[in-house]
Order: sequence, then structure tokens, then C-alpha cells
Amino acid sequence: MRASKYLIATLKETPADAEVVSHQLMLRAGLIRKLASGLYTWLPMGLRVLQKVETIVREEMNRSGAQEVLMPAVQPAELWRESGRWENMGAEMLRMKDRHDREFCFGPTHEEVITDLCRNELRSYKQLPANFYQIQTKFRDERRPRFGVMRAREFLMKDAYSFHVDQASLEETYRVMHDTYCRIFDRLQLEYRPVLADPGAIGGTGSQEFHVLAESGEDAIAFSDSSDYAANVELAEALAPEGERPAPSREMELVDTPKARTIAELVGQFDQPIEKTVKTLVVQASEDVDADLVALLVRGDHELNAIKAEKLAEVAAPLRMAEEAEIRAAIGAGPGSLGPVGLSIPVIADRTVAKMSDFSAGANQDGKHHFGINWGRDAEEPEVADLRNVEDGDPSPDGKGHLQIKRGIEVGHIFQLGKKYSQAMNATVLDEAGKAVTMTMGCYGIGVSRVVAAAIEQNHDDAGIIWPEPIAPYQLALLPINANKSERVRETAEKLYQELSELGIEVLYDDRGERPGVMFANMELIGIPHRLVIGDRGLDKGNLEYKGRRDEKSVDVPVEGVIEFLRDKLGV
Amino acid sequence: MRASKYLIATLKETPADAEVVSHQLMLRAGLIRKLASGLYTWLPMGLRVLQKVETIVREEMNRSGAQEVLMPAVQPAELWRESGRWENMGAEMLRMKDRHDREFCFGPTHEEVITDLCRNELRSYKQLPANFYQIQTKFRDERRPRFGVMRAREFLMKDAYSFHVDQASLEETYRVMHDTYCRIFDRLQLEYRPVLADPGAIGGTGSQEFHVLAESGEDAIAFSDSSDYAANVELAEALAPEGERPAPSREMELVDTPKARTIAELVGQFDQPIEKTVKTLVVQASEDVDADLVALLVRGDHELNAIKAEKLAEVAAPLRMAEEAEIRAAIGAGPGSLGPVGLSIPVIADRTVAKMSDFSAGANQDGKHHFGINWGRDAEEPEVADLRNVEDGDPSPDGKGHLQIKRGIEVGHIFQLGKKYSQAMNATVLDEAGKAVTMTMGCYGIGVSRVVAAAIEQNHDDAGIIWPEPIAPYQLALLPINANKSERVRETAEKLYQELSELGIEVLYDDRGERPGVMFANMELIGIPHRLVIGDRGLDKGNLEYKGRRDEKSVDVPVEGVIEFLRDKLGV
Repeated sequence: MRASKYLIATLKETPADAEVVSHQLMLRAGLIRKLASGLYTWLPMGLRVLQKVETIVREEMNRSGAQEVLMPAVQPAELWRESGRWENMGAEMLRMKDRHDREFCFGPTHEEVITDLCRNELRSYKQLPANFYQIQTKFRDERRPRFGVMRAREFLMKDAYSFHVDQASLEETYRVMHDTYCRIFDRLQLEYRPVLADPGAIGGTGSQEFHVLAESGEDAIAFSDSSDYAANVELAEALAPEGERPAPSREMELVDTPKARTIAELVGQFDQPIEKTVKTLVVQASEDVDADLVALLVRGDHELNAIKAEKLAEVAAPLRMAEEAEIRAAIGAGPGSLGPVGLSIPVIADRTVAKMSDFSAGANQDGKHHFGINWGRDAEEPEVADLRNVEDGDPSPDGKGHLQIKRGIEVGHIFQLGKKYSQAMNATVLDEAGKAVTMTMGCYGIGVSRVVAAAIEQNHDDAGIIWPEPIAPYQLALLPINANKSERVRETAEKLYQELSELGIEVLYDDRGERPGVMFANMELIGIPHRLVIGDRGLDKGNLEYKGRRDEKSVDVPVEGVIEFLRDKLGV
Repeated sequence: MRASKYLIATLKETPADAEVVSHQLMLRAGLIRKLASGLYTWLPMGLRVLQKVETIVREEMNRSGAQEVLMPAVQPAELWRESGRWENMGAEMLRMKDRHDREFCFGPTHEEVITDLCRNELRSYKQLPANFYQIQTKFRDERRPRFGVMRAREFLMKDAYSFHVDQASLEETYRVMHDTYCRIFDRLQLEYRPVLADPGAIGGTGSQEFHVLAESGEDAIAFSDSSDYAANVELAEALAPEGERPAPSREMELVDTPKARTIAELVGQFDQPIEKTVKTLVVQASEDVDADLVALLVRGDHELNAIKAEKLAEVAAPLRMAEEAEIRAAIGAGPGSLGPVGLSIPVIADRTVAKMSDFSAGANQDGKHHFGINWGRDAEEPEVADLRNVEDGDPSPDGKGHLQIKRGIEVGHIFQLGKKYSQAMNATVLDEAGKAVTMTMGCYGIGVSRVVAAAIEQNHDDAGIIWPEPIAPYQLALLPINANKSERVRETAEKLYQELSELGIEVLYDDRGERPGVMFANMELIGIPHRLVIGDRGLDKGNLEYKGRRDEKSVDVPVEGVIEFLRDKLGV
């Protein structure tokens, strides 16, 4: 492509409203432009990247045996009423009425439409399993759209839906999709992890998220340094420390701690290592318990995990922290002075807390703590549960190695949906015995436009984007220096442009007549992986100048060998 | 593709609500399914066709130098208010409000969005001309969606918008787009015509429609049998008959015609050839005329052309036929008895009428006609204009050959928009002198999903669809007979499937175990261009059976030569 015939829409300044680096660079490199809040136009340079991601996703989905379809963006309300989601979806669903006053939405997802299709088209177990996917524009009316295409309102998604005669068949396709997603992200050359995830609002029996690792990621992921184990931090199991609980080595004492209402204050003011302190968090009890409140104990430096706590029979869901007045009424002390000794409400201790000895905690009197508490002696042996978030260095729950925690950007999600939609919408097939059975379903998403932003979050430097080669908008930047003054430079550049293009190499040939500094900066900002500079100084010695986007320095390449050199570098 | 792993969703019965053959066949062949009125899901078989059309369009648009972008489907109302179309578009535009009560529409077209983009991104005449296109989902809330994807509400469109520093540059790109469209429809192997069109509601200075010819087409097209001339029938110029007006050969007489209120009745009851009769149509006059009504005269067998009539200075636009009461008040006779003799309102005669002699027309008295009327003698020489639709056999307006009239389906449209949007939205660039000039624009659409339906309207028979090869969902149907009983058949089929697939041939291999009749009927209905049958009867003689979709009979092909035979047939 000749740059003079192409929209090179680079910006010098970082737009003020772009908070994350991918959003900044996508604007600055001229990949996207904002139309309105959460709505972006893909400019030619950006669309090339998006289409390359799309092609890799499509090829691997086809290879997996999934069948591509294309469903309407606009969906009738009736189907959503059938599944019960018309009311549930809330303001995130963009709703509208047509000229006949019938209700529709701009589909945020397509479970209802595909289930409706399949209940009509699939009749027999012989047609199963079947996996249908589409790559299609979706709309979610985010309360606060941000981060450019990372959390846009209108976005491009690959969504797939599989149909099965039983759970075993679902699990088989689920594994195929897991492997397909790994192939997709491998081909995209992104560092990623499939992580165990909370199935969350869609509901279902098993799910994994695919995260592209990047410091700016919204989600924390825990993964083993010695195995495939990876899970969302909220979901990773925190094991008990190994070994037996150490025996008590000191007597319990009651200490005046008038100015210590937090663990940090306690540790700062007294000679108590934080690993010897315990936090007591009071939450609303469930109706199963003969008490209004329940105390949850975690070590001073650990974080309570709300998802884990909610799952306990004793705890009300959703989790609600007790108000100070409730706590005072039940215990007689404020939230800064609570502890297990003599506590009148049920106590559940985190696994780590249960293995502690000689620890300190509030004394259930304002301004006082107990130091040297020991279970069994000073307080009743507590009920024990996994209550906390895992931390860097924790043992991996699969028993292999230790956990590392990194941040990730969710770009894919695979779900075992089960019969949630097929039951609600009565989607059945006849089984081998001729009996109608409700189909079992899976669903599998990839945020195609979000992948582009995630790739940038993971791959950039101060100069700009560093594209993984398979999704770079162009492979090679061909930059002639002072072509308007040197016929030799111009002729060499034109000839190389022709030859390289004929080899199928995607060349961005900067024939705009810009100064070298502008060309170099533009091409680094855009992130073209390979750069070839043609100048008189080099040509005097028969050389051209090559530099890879991640290289520190350029190297001289003799003119006569440059095609072979580039074929080697680009692998063509 | 193995048919057992693929959604072959053929139907035996023609769905009741499908009026046109393409809609019937798209449902019966399992290409689409209806989700709601005017909303269709593309099934795997249909989507393959749609994507092939899309690919050809994209390749040729890229070759033309146009740059692909992707704009949001959802568009903010403000831009449409700026262009003045938010109010004008009426109920056809699907409107909605987001969670913050801001107004949006599901874009029926993208002039506003692209003009907004280009007024921000294009600064200098040096960046022009520029032509941006997208292939994207649009929505038009048709009052009466019908004919399947032919007139759906949600549809796939290629829309392009070009920007220029002056009209000459626009005209150059317009010509390039004309040629690009011709290449696209050539590659699609469709019989089509670029026709002169009425620019209509979008407004502009020049436009052509691209029509796929098909008997079921909604539009009538007139085109020369000896030149490139083609125009929408409404727009084609009707020339005057050659030669001078014949001299009068009889006296005018007043005849009682009490039962002849129409031309057909007059011709049926009296010895008047229809070519000797004149119809008098009374319409409202424009404000330029010193009368309320104007009489328009066309030959008895000709049709008044409303568009042509409206353009006359004497006639009010839009055209309004006068009520009987108005006519009686002005002329003293009813609409069935009008004519030019002694008429008290202005008369405009069609070119053909002006060349007639000895003709008959109403006498402006109820129940009476004049026969043998001659201009100049019995009635004043009239004002003359082109007032009628052209007819089959008329001379071509370009002077070359004669017109044929066929029906067409509009699948593309190219417009010279001029400055309609750029002026309203203040889209300027600096010209060579550094002066801001309003950009001149063109726009160019192809109804990608409609092309699929049009291709079927043009190419089908009683058995089903006959795809043009470049857009067939699969090139070859591989049909084994009784494979479940014959290992030889099964093995031969499997081996051929492998070999042909490795050659890159798109094979639909019917391994479902259906009876031969079902397989043959399905593949003809789906319209696969080539068919290869493998059966024991043929294999006994070392033969397979080949049949092209348009062939009357199948031919035997020796097993050992079949690959070469097919490569030759398929051109691979």
C-alpha cells in the first residue's frame, strides 16, 4: 500500500480522555476514532488488524467442526420473555420499538435466538452434537463505557453455541473448544491463560475464561508455576498451611490498645508481626443459623473472599457486612476490637487462621486486644473454611508448585450452560429410543475487537505498538529517505515495493514525502514489525538499512541480497 | 464438508408466506430462516454464499483503491439533526434511546457518520480524492418487509463514500466505481445492466443503478439492443416518431359514444385502431400557470410518465390527477369524454401525439368523441413534451438501435452526491491556495444480501437453485449410493473426498446415508453446480457418474480419470 493513498491518521498528542495505553495508542496510531460514547469507527489501519484476528478465529472455529451462521442483531422481545431475561437484563440491554410498536433489542448475546433456531431445525439425536458460531456486532449499553474498544458499547464478538444429547457430549465439545481457543491465542502470538472462572450471571456448570496477560488487566489471575492450573483470584482455592498447628508457647494476655482500631495500627504500635494477627469480620447470617450475625476470621494480612464466604450455609447471600450498631448490640464492642475469645456469635475461621497459635485479636471490649490467643485453650476450636483470596507464593491447589498472581484481560469465555435455555424454551430432540429429551448446551465467546486492544496492552513500548506478526496491519514499512531529491532512492524504493508486493508481502510504502523522523516515528507508533530504509548514504555502499520493531539497532543489508534477507526475516 | 456434520436444512414444502421464488428457494434449500418480520438468520449453507459475494465485492473495492473502514451500526441523533435528516427519515429509521436517554438510530445508511469522520481527518486537498467503504449490517424499518432477504429490514450492505476537491475529481472516481461494479457483477456471473436512474430522495447530480435482470424484478428497465444505453423505464427518453406528421386525410366528425368512457371501450365499440386514439389526462397546474388545471395528452396505448410530467414548468409537483368535480367545473364534461378540440385549459401533447393525424379523442361533452381530429385545423398546435413511458421497440434515445424492456432487481447504486452533506455539515479541506473548500462527495452502494436473492431469481429451475459457480456454497456434490451396504462405494467415496478436498475443491460429501432420490433432490434444490455419483452399478464397469446442474443427462467417467475430468470441469 502506498501511504499517499491511505489514511495514515496518526496523532502527536495523547487524547485527554484515553485512560489506558491501548486506547491511547489506538487513537494515536490512527486505528480507531470515537463516534460517540462507547462507539468507535475502525479506520483502515485498525480494521486490517481486526480482520486478521477475525480470520484466525474463523479458521480455527471451522477447523473445530463448528458451523458458521449469521443471526440478526435486532431480536424480538418475545424470545427474551420466554427465557425470562427481558426483565433481568436491565439497562445494559438496548431496547427499541419498531414502527408497529413491537419491542426489540439490539442483541447483547444470542442464546435465545440460537435456541429458537435449534428447537426448530434439530429433530434427532443424530444431528447432535452441533456447534454454531457467528462473528457479529453486539451492543451492551455499559453504564460507563471506557478504555476505547476494550469496554465499548458496540463491539465485534465471536459467539458459539453447542447442542448435545447429554452432559458427556457437552464436555467433549467443551474440551474441543478449550483446545481451539488455545490454538487461536497461540496463533495470535499472545501470552494468555485459560483460567477457572465463576460462571456468574449466565449460570451453568463449568466455565473457563481466557485472559491475555497484561499489567493493566482488570482481573487478577492466580496460576501455578509448575502446572496448567489457573483460576480467577476470586475462585482459586486457598489451602491450609502445611503441617500441624504449632503448640501454644505463651499465655494469653489482655492489652490496652486504645489507638489500635485496625490491624495496621496494632502492628505499628505493638510488637505483633502481622502474620500473628487475626481480623474478625462480622456479616449477616443466613436464615439457617440461629443468630443474626456470623464472625469470619482471616489473618491480618489476608483478604476476605466474598464469593467464597457467600457460599457458606451460615452466611447470607449476597454478602452483607454488619453495621457498627448491629455489632455493638450483639457483642458490646466496635468493629475495631473484635476477636474469637468469648464471642457470642458463630465463628468461622479461615484455614490459615485455624492453623495459627499465639495470635492476637480484639478482646470484644473497646480499646482492648488479646495477645497470645490459642485455639482450644482460649477460644473454642472454630468451624473452618476457605475464606480468603489466594496470594502470590501460596501453594497451588492442584498440589503442583506455587501460585503466581498476574493481571489479565478477559478475551474469551467458555461455558457449560446445561439446560438453562433449552428447558425454558423447550428445545428437545428425539433420543435413540424416540423419546423427547431437552438438549444440553454450551456457549463460547471471544471478544474479537477486545483482542486487538489486549494485544496492544501486552505489546507496546514508549514509541508505540509492537504488533505480534500475525495481526500486524502491514508486515513491512518501506521508507525512502529524500525520495523527492534522489532519483536513485525513488527508483530503488519503487522497484522493491513492486517485488515485495508480488511476493505477497504486505508492504506499507511511505511515499508521502515526509521527513525521515516523521516516517520513523509514525511506523513505530503504528507498530509495523519490520522496517527497511532506503537512503543515499546506504546506497553509496550498496546497502539498505533493516530494523525489526523490537531491535535496538538497525543493520545494513546489501541491496542485492535484501529480498532473500526479508523472506527469511518474515518467513515467506 | 461431510453432510452428516452439517446443517442440511432442506424443506419439502414451499413455505406459505414466501411470495417470490428466491424467498421460497432460500427457505427450502436451508439458506435462511426467519426470526421475525424482515429479520433472517443465515444458516451455514446460505452464509457461505453471502460470504463469497462479500469477498468478491471486497476484492474489487480494494483493487479500485477504496479503503475499507467499519463504522458503528448505532448512530447518535445529533449527526442526523445536523444534516437535517433526523426528521425527514420518518418511520423507516429505527430509533432508540440509550440508558442516559440520548437518542440514537440503527443506521440505515452512513453519510452523516463518514462526513463527520472526514471533516475531522481530512485537512488538505493532498489527501483527496479518498474513497471509504464498509461491508456492514444496516436496518430499514420497511412498512411491509417481504420477499425474504430481498426486502428485509436488517441487511448486509457495501456502502462507499468518496470525497473530492471538485466535481471533475468526483466524476473520475464515479467512473472508476462504475467500472468496479461492472467487474463485481461480471465476477458474480450475473446478467446485469447499469441503468440511468432517478437520483430520487438522496439528491445529487448523477446516478446509475445496477440491476440484475430477472422476470420477477420490481423495476422495468429499458436498454438498447445495439449500445450500452440503459435506463429505468421511468427515466428513459421517449423520442418522437421519425418523419413528418402525415397530412389530414379526413374530416373531423362528432360521434355519439355513450358507452365508451375508456380507450379500451372506444376501440372495442368503434372502428378506431388504438394507435389513432388520444387519452386526455387532467392534472393540477403549477403556480406558474394562469389556470388551475392542465391537460396532458398521450396516445391511447401509451402510459403517462409521472416523473416526466412533474418536471414540466406548467405542472404541479408532486403530480396530482384532477378530481372529476374539478374537471366538470372547468370543462363541462367527465374524464371519459375529454379531448383537445376547443379545450379551455392549457394542453401539452406527448411527442408521439404531436405527430398524429386523423386521431380520435373525447369531445368535451359527455358521451361524445371527435373522430378524425387534426392539429392546426381542428385544434390549436399544442405545446409538445416527452410525457410517456418508453415501450419495447421504441428507438433508443442515444440513436443506436431500439429499446428492449426487461425487469430488473436493483442490487447496486452509484450517486454523485455533490455537496449536500458536506455543506450541511461543514466538511472542508484547504485547497492549493490555502483556502477552505467544501468537499464534493459521491456514494456507492451494493446490497450484498440482496445479491444472493437476485442471483436465485435469475438462476433457478423447477428443481431448485442453479448457482453461478463463483458463489455456489459448494462446488461439487459427492453422492455415494448405498454406502452403508457397499464397502467399495464407501471406500471410493472417502478416498475421492480426501483427494478432491486436498486439491482445494469445495466438496459437499453426502455421507448421511439418505436414499439416492433424497440426495439428488437435496443437491439440486441447494443448487450445487457439479455432481458426482458413486454406485456399484457404475463401479462394476469402472465408472462414476457426472452431471452438471444445468445438464440434461449424466455422463460416465472412468474412475481413474475422474480427478482430471473434474479439474477440467471446475477449472482448478
